[in-house]
Amino acid sequence: MIEPTTATARPQAPAAVFDWLDEAAELRARAGLTRILRSRPAEDPVLDLASNDYLGLTRHPAVTQAAAEAARRWGGGATGSRLVTGTTVLHTELEVELADFCGVEAALVFSSGYAANLAVLTALTDPDTVIVSDAYNHASLIDGCRLARARVWRAPHADPAAVAEALAERAEPRALVVSDSVFSVDGNAAPLGALSDAAARGGAALLVDDAHGLGVLGPGGRGALAAAGLAGRPDTVATATLSKSLGSQGGVVLGPRRVIRHLVESARTFIFDTGLAPAAVGAALGALRLLRAEPERAERAREVARTLAARLTEAGLRASDPDAAVVSVLAPGPEQAVAWAADCRTAGLAVGCFRPPSVPDGLSRLRLTARADLTERQIAEAVAVLARTAPQG
Amino acid sequence: MIEPTTATARPQAPAAVFDWLDEAAELRARAGLTRILRSRPAEDPVLDLASNDYLGLTRHPAVTQAAAEAARRWGGGATGSRLVTGTTVLHTELEVELADFCGVEAALVFSSGYAANLAVLTALTDPDTVIVSDAYNHASLIDGCRLARARVWRAPHADPAAVAEALAERAEPRALVVSDSVFSVDGNAAPLGALSDAAARGGAALLVDDAHGLGVLGPGGRGALAAAGLAGRPDTVATATLSKSLGSQGGVVLGPRRVIRHLVESARTFIFDTGLAPAAVGAALGALRLLRAEPERAERAREVARTLAARLTEAGLRASDPDAAVVSVLAPGPEQAVAWAADCRTAGLAVGCFRPPSVPDGLSRLRLTARADLTERQIAEAVAVLARTAPQG
Repeated sequence: MIEPTTATARPQAPAAVFDWLDEAAELRARAGLTRILRSRPAEDPVLDLASNDYLGLTRHPAVTQAAAEAARRWGGGATGSRLVTGTTVLHTELEVELADFCGVEAALVFSSGYAANLAVLTALTDPDTVIVSDAYNHASLIDGCRLARARVWRAPHADPAAVAEALAERAEPRALVVSDSVFSVDGNAAPLGALSDAAARGGAALLVDDAHGLGVLGPGGRGALAAAGLAGRPDTVATATLSKSLGSQGGVVLGPRRVIRHLVESARTFIFDTGLAPAAVGAALGALRLLRAEPERAERAREVARTLAARLTEAGLRASDPDAAVVSVLAPGPEQAVAWAADCRTAGLAVGCFRPPSVPDGLSRLRLTARADLTERQIAEAVAVLARTAPQG
Repeated sequence: MIEPTTATARPQAPAAVFDWLDEAAELRARAGLTRILRSRPAEDPVLDLASNDYLGLTRHPAVTQAAAEAARRWGGGATGSRLVTGTTVLHTELEVELADFCGVEAALVFSSGYAANLAVLTALTDPDTVIVSDAYNHASLIDGCRLARARVWRAPHADPAAVAEALAERAEPRALVVSDSVFSVDGNAAPLGALSDAAARGGAALLVDDAHGLGVLGPGGRGALAAAGLAGRPDTVATATLSKSLGSQGGVVLGPRRVIRHLVESARTFIFDTGLAPAAVGAALGALRLLRAEPERAERAREVARTLAARLTEAGLRASDPDAAVVSVLAPGPEQAVAWAADCRTAGLAVGCFRPPSVPDGLSRLRLTARADLTERQIAEAVAVLARTAPQG
């Protein structure tokens, strides 16, 4: 975030107290960092490779029907915090089924993945803890580290040896190693097996944010921990979202029963937040049941990603080697990335565009979602548009 | 939150890294602070005076129908962050109508009120800012203060003179005065007029969390700022939830257009979170339109609160003088408060129970919601149960 570099004088008039926001906007505009909200219509003619709807379930009739029924049966909202009136039988059903699916003892649902990450990082740490956090972790993990009362050590990206060293050298009795399972911008996977080994040898717990892994990785989409043979470990906690593969909204913490109990009793973003709306609970349950019935959807998302990356590489573009359902394509620079994404949109293709300061490594790129429901023809069209509109260099 | 007082030795085995959570649970149990999730059924025979469903709209057919239709038309989730694919035309409609209803230039919807408060407190402050925050503010405001890179000064509760003094004595060019409009536990209102005067004279902005005021206070439920004649001021920002009076889920920031633009471009809990689910957007829109059509609902909630408080006082209980739709009743101590709430539940009445450390003033009490749709008979029943089960003293 760019702020004015010099502190302005104390404003005198009420109309002037927010003048500095205009200066900040002007600085962002000059740096080419203006962001604008674009409203999409219900029937969008654009081919979507920008969302996180990995399994293409958001608009599946079974999911929307489950959302609609939950709203009708339970109401438009949860009416209160989870500990007062905001836990319905439907919430409990979802938590039981998510825990069972992911192979953990218990699950706890939040109003967002952001809230779930803040909860775990603040409630499972204290001043006697060091948090060892991957440098490329998601903003919600970083904010959780900032809210925690622990020492935070920013580990080099995907470097289990550095993690092991930090754990060995620490003074604190407790430690929590934290990593995304799949990093959202580039789509690459963390070395979870080696991280888990390092954590176990160093007497640390492991927290994995599986937002981009649940529904895509592991047998039938059971997630990155299942894929790595780490699901159900007594020292491991996962968080995930209900808003990506599960086509809904919300977040979840998955782990040992004692961890979930601790969150219920002490996590501020759980205790002081309204429970997730019944429609979102219903949609996530609908999607989860669909995924259990049709486990091939997970493999299909990975296959689409591999196909997309191979075709883009054949077309001469610098595509990533996808570990999950995200493919990234490097651009020569930030301006070219923005222009490329805009040209794609003009041609009817929505892609994500990431540039500094949103990319940890400073490399501008397009981000493509390989939805499981993309057809051969849509993949071909996407590749053709990307190749045709690609910048020189 | 209670933690073990002595740091335990570094755990050796993976199965032991969370042993300290059991110690923490044991300490909470001994202090009588165990919290348990209770799942409620869809057709709950219990009379609900515990939720925040102030207008009784959560299960109104117009609200649940709007939620169901939105899920069917737009999908189970928003599919991405608001700046990528997560803004639908429905989100924009809700933001335009909320801004118009509350008499402000613009509105921005979040996945929760918690996220909205974190956004405002982090994005509208910097190291050149002092935040002057009421001592009794909600947990989400406190966490927002902790995440902000500003100096935070904890102001005595509801004390505009102390706020004015802190503003006059500050070294920072910028200042943000922060207060709940209605404090959630006791239901008392902040002195918003005097706080606004103090902020304006001190060259500060004012942030008001109107979670418990929107839909209840002001003409037709337009909120605490409208009630105080402060809506639309260029130096004032409000946050509110969609999960209380509006019977849905989510949060909203209401204020000058330049503030909303700044949040869109720089607030991390906006940028890095999935957009609010369409069903929740639809439910909130449905409730807002209903409230516009039937503005008497707001006055009815306040009237129920006054009636409830008067009857409880007549019955010899120590009820608060309600400023909005919350009535609190003092208990002699924490154990008696817990037993009282349990006895009410056995008698078919759900009430909130607050005791240390959740109450800023250390006084244990029951918290009653005066829903606009409570009948005369339900009010009489609630008063009878509360009087019959009241502890001695």
